[in-house]
Amino acid sequence: MVEINQEEQEQLNEELLIETLNSENIIGFREEFLYLHPYDQAKFFTKIAQEERLRIYRFLSPKEVSDFFEVLEIDDDEYKDILAEMEPQYVADMLSHMFTDNAVDVLNMLDKLQAASYLTIMNKESAQEIKDLLHYEESTAGSIMTTEYIAISANQTVRSAMHILKNEAPTAETIYYVFVIDDDRRLVGVISLRDLIITNDDTMISEIMSSRVVSITVDADQEDAAKQMRDYDLLALPVVDFQNHLLGIITVDDIIDVIDEEASDDYSKLAAVMDVDTIDKNPFSAAKKRLPWLIILLFLGMFTASLIGRFENTLNQVSILAVFIPLIAGMAGNTGTQALAVAVRGIATGELEEESRWKLVIREGGTGLITGSICGLLVVIIVFLWKGELFLGFLVGVSILASLFVATLAGTLVPLLMHKLKIDPAVASGPFITTMNDLTSILIYFGLATLFMSYLIH
Amino acid sequence: MVEINQEEQEQLNEELLIETLNSENIIGFREEFLYLHPYDQAKFFTKIAQEERLRIYRFLSPKEVSDFFEVLEIDDDEYKDILAEMEPQYVADMLSHMFTDNAVDVLNMLDKLQAASYLTIMNKESAQEIKDLLHYEESTAGSIMTTEYIAISANQTVRSAMHILKNEAPTAETIYYVFVIDDDRRLVGVISLRDLIITNDDTMISEIMSSRVVSITVDADQEDAAKQMRDYDLLALPVVDFQNHLLGIITVDDIIDVIDEEASDDYSKLAAVMDVDTIDKNPFSAAKKRLPWLIILLFLGMFTASLIGRFENTLNQVSILAVFIPLIAGMAGNTGTQALAVAVRGIATGELEEESRWKLVIREGGTGLITGSICGLLVVIIVFLWKGELFLGFLVGVSILASLFVATLAGTLVPLLMHKLKIDPAVASGPFITTMNDLTSILIYFGLATLFMSYLIH
Repeated sequence: MVEINQEEQEQLNEELLIETLNSENIIGFREEFLYLHPYDQAKFFTKIAQEERLRIYRFLSPKEVSDFFEVLEIDDDEYKDILAEMEPQYVADMLSHMFTDNAVDVLNMLDKLQAASYLTIMNKESAQEIKDLLHYEESTAGSIMTTEYIAISANQTVRSAMHILKNEAPTAETIYYVFVIDDDRRLVGVISLRDLIITNDDTMISEIMSSRVVSITVDADQEDAAKQMRDYDLLALPVVDFQNHLLGIITVDDIIDVIDEEASDDYSKLAAVMDVDTIDKNPFSAAKKRLPWLIILLFLGMFTASLIGRFENTLNQVSILAVFIPLIAGMAGNTGTQALAVAVRGIATGELEEESRWKLVIREGGTGLITGSICGLLVVIIVFLWKGELFLGFLVGVSILASLFVATLAGTLVPLLMHKLKIDPAVASGPFITTMNDLTSILIYFGLATLFMSYLIH
Repeated sequence: MVEINQEEQEQLNEELLIETLNSENIIGFREEFLYLHPYDQAKFFTKIAQEERLRIYRFLSPKEVSDFFEVLEIDDDEYKDILAEMEPQYVADMLSHMFTDNAVDVLNMLDKLQAASYLTIMNKESAQEIKDLLHYEESTAGSIMTTEYIAISANQTVRSAMHILKNEAPTAETIYYVFVIDDDRRLVGVISLRDLIITNDDTMISEIMSSRVVSITVDADQEDAAKQMRDYDLLALPVVDFQNHLLGIITVDDIIDVIDEEASDDYSKLAAVMDVDTIDKNPFSAAKKRLPWLIILLFLGMFTASLIGRFENTLNQVSILAVFIPLIAGMAGNTGTQALAVAVRGIATGELEEESRWKLVIREGGTGLITGSICGLLVVIIVFLWKGELFLGFLVGVSILASLFVATLAGTLVPLLMHKLKIDPAVASGPFITTMNDLTSILIYFGLATLFMSYLIH
């Protein structure tokens, strides 16, 4: 009940706000709108029509628009359209008011030429900062860092540090960690605002800073940055170059996005969907994303079909064999997916260290044998009770044992191998490994059946 | 190269530290160990033997142990064993030094009696705070909140607020948000330390606080708390009761754990593994976790087998039909998993609002028709080219079209229905929906084949 009321309230507020906007009540709109949290401003902005957006660009300054533009959740194409609605100078001003990492995110969605044209008319300082960040490769620490951090020297007092902090607070992305650098801008320490506040004003920074700084190099994977921040409970992680010069910081809000993104990335791949978190607007765009996978899997499935085709003779003689095809193939697919998921997440979360890989393979082999034996035995009993055929039961049971063993090993070895070859192991999606395991399990089943054909015909 | 050297260095440091510990060099050990980050302390602690742990309890105070005990990543059973090694009073002191939410996490792993015995010998104030939190149900906002927040009144100056803040900084879990309450402890505002610092000391809190506080009720799902903190980029979220009284706060580090946990929970379920993030030590415990799923799926598979058994007559006459069983079942399984993943994540991330559910079903139905038509057409062509049989091609093609349509709808409807019935939709795991789709697709395929049998026999 409470939820519905809240939703209704929101709906009402939105309608009122649109009304204020369309009645050209600048002061009223500014008062209402600027009172909202940027996230709610962004939500409102994505819901309104173009003519209403055009009013917003007249009623709000580029800086005010930049506040919610940073947290807008829309497609690349929609970004382009919206930027095209604004005057180029307005866009440039807006970008220069964003935190550098967010401005870079926006520019990365545009064509190179378009991005360059905004940079040309932007104020020089902001443009340079953005250009510096545009170089970094996607998914690296460099690509998500911002340059709006606060750095001080070790040879100053807490008082003077607090003075710097108060001055820079309005523009810094976080003021809760202050980084200590030497004359050469090398990172030498870190101090939290908490420590600054509880320390006597005349204390030297060098006395209270922590010289054991957790940092990350600029080319490191953003997932590693996320792992460090999670493990060490950091609100900001300094990014350095290979000579330990401080280049920027990654803040915790960006890391939450990374963790979210990576997790649903792995999830999407396990399900063989391009990007599970984008809700498609129409069936065509959804189909377009899924078809590439399905068509690959269709051809793999055809391969399986042609494999069974080779055993047509066997099938002609004992057509009951066909009855257990989905069971055997399905069970192999299921165990393979289980093993795959464990390996893929183990690699992604870094819990699988280099040394324990072989241990994992041996352990998974053992797991495959155990699950295979138990499921195989169950099948022997069920088939015997159902059909009264002991030999057929054994044939199916042994096939399940062998298939589960092979499928578990394949589910483990394939992602480990891919990781070794520097391919994202999550690409070995669930359906892919399932279809592969269909193939091997059917080979095992029909191979055994053909071999022991004489026992099957009575 | 760099990484290996770093690992070697860590290895070396650990060995040195163990040596210092075992040579009873208290001062040396304390100096080295306390210099480490709690996360590294915890890593070290999980690696050493029992006799070495017993030394640590002598060398370090309960408070010092509590620092890394909070971030220990071990099983419930291991927690119990380790607590059993310590003197009860030592445990009680350690727990009372932890942040309340973490102490509650530890106590929740123990038997009720054991937990109560520690609470009895703990100092009264800490025990009461912990008892208050122990009530909250798992996965609610209440269960992850902490009571170590800083609250001030609106009728005081920035100067006096900063004074309170400095006093409470050493024990508060975060000082970066200060919450403003009225005489009745109702939450009326929030102010960030950033704002406090840049504001003149004589300003009243009421003038600068934000009265638009994002908060969450104590019984809300922890996922909703995570969503709010992510959307609003918060470092701390206040938790209130139904009269808006401030009860505690949730900090961003806990939310990162929640996001991680929920994502890998969904992932585990899609793969039908109990908990993909716990790396099992031996094949038996791994098999124990996977077997329940596999056995359920085995029986479902048997059901599919008996379904094909009913078409034995059809199969006897046209054994080539068996060739396409894995293809059709597999394709249905794959599309079902794709649709399932989209729906499960859509529900989990809250992107699917109530109103758009029917839209999703219609859209997914459309997607199923499109992918089904294209894959079906491809199959007709391939089977014709391969076998020269146009009718067989049509039969398989139409079966694929129908199966893909049904599977896509099932993959969407099942999780939506489960969500409606307040069951976690992620339980409809990938292999489960795959096996269900095996069944329907085979029913379609053999049903059509039996119906049009006369065309298949030449």
